[in-house]
Formats: sequence, structure tokens, C-alpha cells
Amino acid sequence: MRLADLSARSGVSTATIKYYLREGLLPPGRQLNATTAEYDEGHLRRLRLVRALIQVGKIPVATAREVLGHVDDVSLGRTIRIGAAMWALPQEAEPDEEDPDVVAARAEADRLLERLGWESARELASLSPVHRSLVVAMATLRRLGYPWDAELLAPYGALMHEVARRDLDFLESHASEAEKVEMAVAAAVLFEPALRALHRLAQEEETTRRYGIE
Amino acid sequence: MRLADLSARSGVSTATIKYYLREGLLPPGRQLNATTAEYDEGHLRRLRLVRALIQVGKIPVATAREVLGHVDDVSLGRTIRIGAAMWALPQEAEPDEEDPDVVAARAEADRLLERLGWESARELASLSPVHRSLVVAMATLRRLGYPWDAELLAPYGALMHEVARRDLDFLESHASEAEKVEMAVAAAVLFEPALRALHRLAQEEETTRRYGIE
Repeated sequence: MRLADLSARSGVSTATIKYYLREGLLPPGRQLNATTAEYDEGHLRRLRLVRALIQVGKIPVATAREVLGHVDDVSLGRTIRIGAAMWALPQEAEPDEEDPDVVAARAEADRLLERLGWESARELASLSPVHRSLVVAMATLRRLGYPWDAELLAPYGALMHEVARRDLDFLESHASEAEKVEMAVAAAVLFEPALRALHRLAQEEETTRRYGIE
Repeated sequence: MRLADLSARSGVSTATIKYYLREGLLPPGRQLNATTAEYDEGHLRRLRLVRALIQVGKIPVATAREVLGHVDDVSLGRTIRIGAAMWALPQEAEPDEEDPDVVAARAEADRLLERLGWESARELASLSPVHRSLVVAMATLRRLGYPWDAELLAPYGALMHEVARRDLDFLESHASEAEKVEMAVAAAVLFEPALRALHRLAQEEETTRRYGIE
């Protein structure tokens, strides 16, 4: 398809598409002549992902470029390719390792992973920004006087593992390796608000069922 | 306890506690004489909640006052008391009802709740800001070309219902009605980051298990 068709099918203006091309967020089309290039379904898919990252995820262009660089790195195995892209997404603040609440939260997080049997997550703990986010969240709870420990969090972890299995089953339903990796990144940015809304709505449903309305 | 003890036990400076008292976020202590007031465990608990709302939730003081007003309204039944406090928390943007993606997402959200058997959530749909957040999230997915439908979302809803049952079991483990309602609000603000981190960590664990590291 031509640029105008790519714009019509994606709902993104030609000016914005040209900007994404210039910034290297979208690979160039196949040049037909000096003024015309041809784009394919892969461009359409990538354009959706770029909008998800930038418009919804509010991710800076330089960060998006880095994330997409990992997505496109076919030299990597799938775990590392998805992992590198996810790890390049903006993360929570870094934990302050001098803070006693952080030290205690890190030990508690380790107990939690042990209890859950998440061996790979334990091995990756020192590398993973996601693990650091968990430590920060648990340190905040502790500092504010809500010391939610491994015992309380483990059943939540087990339920989130169920959710993650579903996420990966859904990824595997996609045809190509490129689509799988792109979908993993899109889901990390786009799916979170839907999941949060479902959680709160489930709380309303269950509160009403248990205690009635009045 | 005196103000100095309340400060020591909460880790909040006396100046900040006085500010919260002036703003009506913390109820006054029992006045012992012209210059001294006595505070109790209820003050300590409330101070934790105020910090959670303002420091972690980044909620404006006026909004926090409104949330706490609902928390303290003993004339309400538990469902409405928790619901009113939750609904007063800052919500996502309002859906634009003229937008065809919003119209389609609203119909799909209704199919989703029907499939989940969430009858109370369906009845409250026109009132609940949480329901509106779900519609906004689903409309965004649709607009960006990821039309995740009721069929795909229903199993996630069922898992979030499991999470919500756990949330309420945990609330019920607290002694007083006031503690139950306060904990519901604190959890809405504080627990989300921990749950999100657990979800992402579970994805790492499951990705590594399925595809290995290299």
C-alpha cells in the first residue's frame, strides 16, 4: 500500500507517519521510485505499536526507539528479546539500598519468590528492573505501616502467575515470531489499564454480593 | 499519646501532622488542656492512610478530604461507604460517548459482564466510574487496532474476581468496621503497584520457563 493508504488504514496522519519514519520508529517502505514507497502489513502493525508506546504509554521517542530496537533484534532468543524490550520500558524509581525498609522488603521479596517457586525470577533478581519495582512497592507498604508480607502476597502471586500463563498462551496464538514479540510489548503498555479496571469492578461486584447495596 | 509520640511512631513530622489537623484530614485529639491533646491508635491508623493517599497516591488535599469524609460516614452501609470512598478517588478520563470506538467498547463491556455473570456490576454500570474506566480502556485498545473482545477478556475477569475475593477476605480479617473501610481505600492506592510488579515478574518467570534463557 502507499503512504496515503497506510494513513487511512491506521488512522494516523501522513505527517505523523513521516515523523515516525524520520525518527527511525518505523522502517522505510520499499522505494518504488524517487517519490513513492510501498508499505505492507508489517508497517501497519508496527505503526499500531508505536502509537501504543507513544500516545498511550507516554513513552519518550528515544525510549520507544530503544524498545523497538530490541523487538527487532532477531539475533536474540525469544525470552531475551521480549525481556530486553520490557526492561527498556520506563520503570519505577530505583530502590535506595541504604534504606532499612528497602533492605527488609528485599529479604521479604526473596521469601515470596521462594514460596511461589519462581526459580527463574530469583535467578534474574539482581538484573531485573521488574524485581526492583516489586521491592520498591513492598518497601513503600512497609514504610507506611502496611507490612504486607510473603504470606499475604503469595496467593496474589499465584493468581498473577495464572494471568501470565494466559498472556503467553495468547501470544503463542499469533503467527510469526515478530508478531509475538510486538504483542508482548503492546500488552505490557495497553493491557494494564483494562486489567486494573477489571480488578476494581470485581471488587464492586464482590462487595455488593457480600454486603448488599444499602 | 502526645503529638510528639504520634510523630515518632508514624515517622511523620509534627509540622506535617499539624498541617493535616488544620486541613481536617486528621480528626482533633482529645484536648487535655489549652496546649496539650491526646491521640490514640485510630489517629495513627488515619495518619497512615492520609500519607498513602497524599504521598503515594499523589491525591490533592481536597480530594483526600472528600474520600475520608465517605470513609467516616457511619450512616452508610459498608458497600456504599467503601464504594463512595473509591468513587471519590481520581479516575481515568471520561469516555466520549460520540466516539464510535466508545460506543462499540460499551456494548462489548456489557457482553463481558454478562458472560462473567457480574449482575451487580451491570446494574451499577451507569453510575460507576470504575465501569467507565473499563470502557475507556477497551475503547483505546479498539482504536489502536487491538480489539480485545469479551471472549478474550472474560478469563482475565474471572481471575480478577478471584483476586477481589481475596481482597475482601483480607478486609474481613480486620477487627472494626472503621479499619475495614480504611483498609479498602489504602489497598486501592497502595496495592496496585505491588500487583502490577507481581504480574510482570510472573510473565518473566513463565517466559523463561517456556522458552529458556538463551
